[in-house]
Amino acid sequence: MAQKPSIPKGTRDFSPAVMLKRNYIMEVIKKAFQTFGYLPIETPSMENLSTLMGKYGEEGDRLIFKILNSGDFLKKVDANSDFEAKKMTSKISEKALRYDLTVPFARYVVQNQNDITLPFKRYQIQPVWRADRPQKGRFREFYQCDADVVGSRSLLYEVELIQLYDKVFTDLRLSAIIKLNNRKILSGIAEVIGEEDKLIDITVAIDKLDKIGLEKVKEEMQTKGVSDAAIEKLDPILNMKGDASQKLVTMREVLATSAIGLEGVQEIQTVIDKIAVLGLESAELDFDLTLARGLNYYTGSIFEVQAKGVQMGSIGGGGRYDDLTGIFGLKDMPGIGISFGLDRIYLVLEELGLFPSLEADFTQVLFVNFGEKEADYCLKVLRDLRKAGINSELYPDPAKMKKQMNYANKKGIPYVVLVGEDEMNSGLLTVKNMDDGSQSNINVVDMIKLLNPKNGGDTNT
Amino acid sequence: MAQKPSIPKGTRDFSPAVMLKRNYIMEVIKKAFQTFGYLPIETPSMENLSTLMGKYGEEGDRLIFKILNSGDFLKKVDANSDFEAKKMTSKISEKALRYDLTVPFARYVVQNQNDITLPFKRYQIQPVWRADRPQKGRFREFYQCDADVVGSRSLLYEVELIQLYDKVFTDLRLSAIIKLNNRKILSGIAEVIGEEDKLIDITVAIDKLDKIGLEKVKEEMQTKGVSDAAIEKLDPILNMKGDASQKLVTMREVLATSAIGLEGVQEIQTVIDKIAVLGLESAELDFDLTLARGLNYYTGSIFEVQAKGVQMGSIGGGGRYDDLTGIFGLKDMPGIGISFGLDRIYLVLEELGLFPSLEADFTQVLFVNFGEKEADYCLKVLRDLRKAGINSELYPDPAKMKKQMNYANKKGIPYVVLVGEDEMNSGLLTVKNMDDGSQSNINVVDMIKLLNPKNGGDTNT
Repeated sequence: MAQKPSIPKGTRDFSPAVMLKRNYIMEVIKKAFQTFGYLPIETPSMENLSTLMGKYGEEGDRLIFKILNSGDFLKKVDANSDFEAKKMTSKISEKALRYDLTVPFARYVVQNQNDITLPFKRYQIQPVWRADRPQKGRFREFYQCDADVVGSRSLLYEVELIQLYDKVFTDLRLSAIIKLNNRKILSGIAEVIGEEDKLIDITVAIDKLDKIGLEKVKEEMQTKGVSDAAIEKLDPILNMKGDASQKLVTMREVLATSAIGLEGVQEIQTVIDKIAVLGLESAELDFDLTLARGLNYYTGSIFEVQAKGVQMGSIGGGGRYDDLTGIFGLKDMPGIGISFGLDRIYLVLEELGLFPSLEADFTQVLFVNFGEKEADYCLKVLRDLRKAGINSELYPDPAKMKKQMNYANKKGIPYVVLVGEDEMNSGLLTVKNMDDGSQSNINVVDMIKLLNPKNGGDTNT
Repeated sequence: MAQKPSIPKGTRDFSPAVMLKRNYIMEVIKKAFQTFGYLPIETPSMENLSTLMGKYGEEGDRLIFKILNSGDFLKKVDANSDFEAKKMTSKISEKALRYDLTVPFARYVVQNQNDITLPFKRYQIQPVWRADRPQKGRFREFYQCDADVVGSRSLLYEVELIQLYDKVFTDLRLSAIIKLNNRKILSGIAEVIGEEDKLIDITVAIDKLDKIGLEKVKEEMQTKGVSDAAIEKLDPILNMKGDASQKLVTMREVLATSAIGLEGVQEIQTVIDKIAVLGLESAELDFDLTLARGLNYYTGSIFEVQAKGVQMGSIGGGGRYDDLTGIFGLKDMPGIGISFGLDRIYLVLEELGLFPSLEADFTQVLFVNFGEKEADYCLKVLRDLRKAGINSELYPDPAKMKKQMNYANKKGIPYVVLVGEDEMNSGLLTVKNMDDGSQSNINVVDMIKLLNPKNGGDTNT
């Protein structure tokens, strides 16, 4: 019995049309990464289970895909005494699929510490896997796309990564807002209101300000045990108005007694001032106190990027961390990183119609096959077109004209070349424009000019 | 206790220098694929276990990496009654990592048969995983790089794929020999010598002709039970001399009584004749009767590519098959495909010194950091250089000159820019060429011209 083919839940096939769009996004990002001095690395899909376990919390441990040992792994297990899930898993599995790019990067830095030059600027674009319940927009396999620099505390990297976001989203013609916050400001707030132990609760509540409004935020803090006096002290912050500079003035007043809080304000001020002098090409930069992303690991700046004009969570995010590699025994490795949400960027570009014509990546010319003699003639022309870098094909059999034209239509091929007796005698190709149905007779050299952008052709890339 | 970081046996980290070289190879191949009308697809890393099992023989089944079910998978297993390896595996694992790109492609074609246009030309460059014993040059994770066309029996695709090999290896500046054989010729030989049931034994023996010589080949056939009369009949074939055309004349005589054999000869003749008319840019095409690659699944043409001037197995191979998708219930889907051996191509290019300078992909300019005022000035110049597509960086702190120059040296950055009081006043940058130590004073516009190939710069890409 033949199997009815399917793929595991939460995974995807990517068709050529989708792949070319995804490649377009990735190429823009890669180019920008390299322009800013970030270089690619790749790490194995599988890491030792011990490298990954315990790095993403208890929930994370469950969501890591474990790989069954090969060979007679089950011999190791004594069925009667060892039959307890956790113990058993560690005996039958020693490897797992990477869950993100950050832990493998940390492992890489430690393992290769003698070969890398600090500050080390790397980017990495590879799939990651999570044994999550599949649902709309959440996949069990998806690409992550990260740039990090480790080995420096310089705020110039904050400036650089904001410029990098600006560069990528400008090149993608996507209007973006880059939101900036700083973990130290959040710590300072908790400090001045005397609720340092409730930092997480407070920031989680503040994070909802946009969605649920001020009163509900206050209620939530109350239920978490934040005192009324403390909540009252928050009022000027939560009612803050104006642009980034004005908000920073308010923050400076509120945080006057908190050294860490003022440090955070100063860091944001420095970054915003430098960006103001340099200017951004198209993105907007804003200080957003409510941004509490990745509070568990970021220690300074926090970034989040949103696309304007669509409802679509964040399309990027990142932040600064004090200690990337401590868990692997290498101390004092601070850094900062950003990531791009490939799937969401794809959806935004699709929704806003921002993908450029990728026509030149598809086949541009189909030669109709009228028989062996004509096909042999076409093969020579084809050879010259391909040598000029033009994506082109010859239909493989002398099938009915209708079938061949149908093939061109379905593949969206813009030009069809017809070569019969006349064309072979004259050396002029009959070229049919599939968009408007017009036909012209041109020689090979002009055909190449028509299609090859380097020769002043009319394609869009 | 900090863990000593390591990666699973048979897997690899790729450093930036290696990644850029790998990317170079893949970009050359992708560009060629698209020039010939092949378009990219990607399939998930995980397939259902049932999609993969039984497709690669018993050995293959063992070498497939299985993924442990997530959640409480062990509850499904009754420890006392079910403790038998094979049964147990199927209960605790339902997914596995892809073993090659061919079976997922077959699955894709069947699953998407209503959306694809035949002939369907696709390429796919993704990692595959094999639970093989790791050893030198054999990895548990490695990239495969395949182009296939399905839905046609036309020999024009043989011609096309030979041209494609030629294009890729010409672009890589690698001298290649493309060896061509045909399964039908091998069948014909077995037929005319009356040993049809020993086809595999005979071809396996003939395959060793180069290495062990004629006498040993004959001995091996004898031990496999091939009759002396049959071996004698093989003599004219095994002693065949001359170029492809001359060999085909001999083959035609020997196979005169075998319909299938003559069909194979005719197919090779057609392909060789067409290529002779079209010419190849740099590769050499040869008929090689001893080529027995993939005899289990190829039904017509068989390809293998070797690099000249190095000892390094095949760097590519492929062939024609009658039935790609029957196993998934879709009959009559013939096709032909080729693959490129990325790791071996890398080694050949390295050994022969054929990698181009990839300098322009690394950072090209480092701005030395002399302090905040100077750094602010540099940031503006940097912004303009990056806008012009030049990979450039500013050192993040005003560290000692020696440290900053050391950074430039270790990263192989060819130009260092020094900006102090004088430079800020004059607007002329002091640019140090790290190769020869020379310094010059130029403005930003000239700096861009110096480095950006599009502006007539001196870089090599």
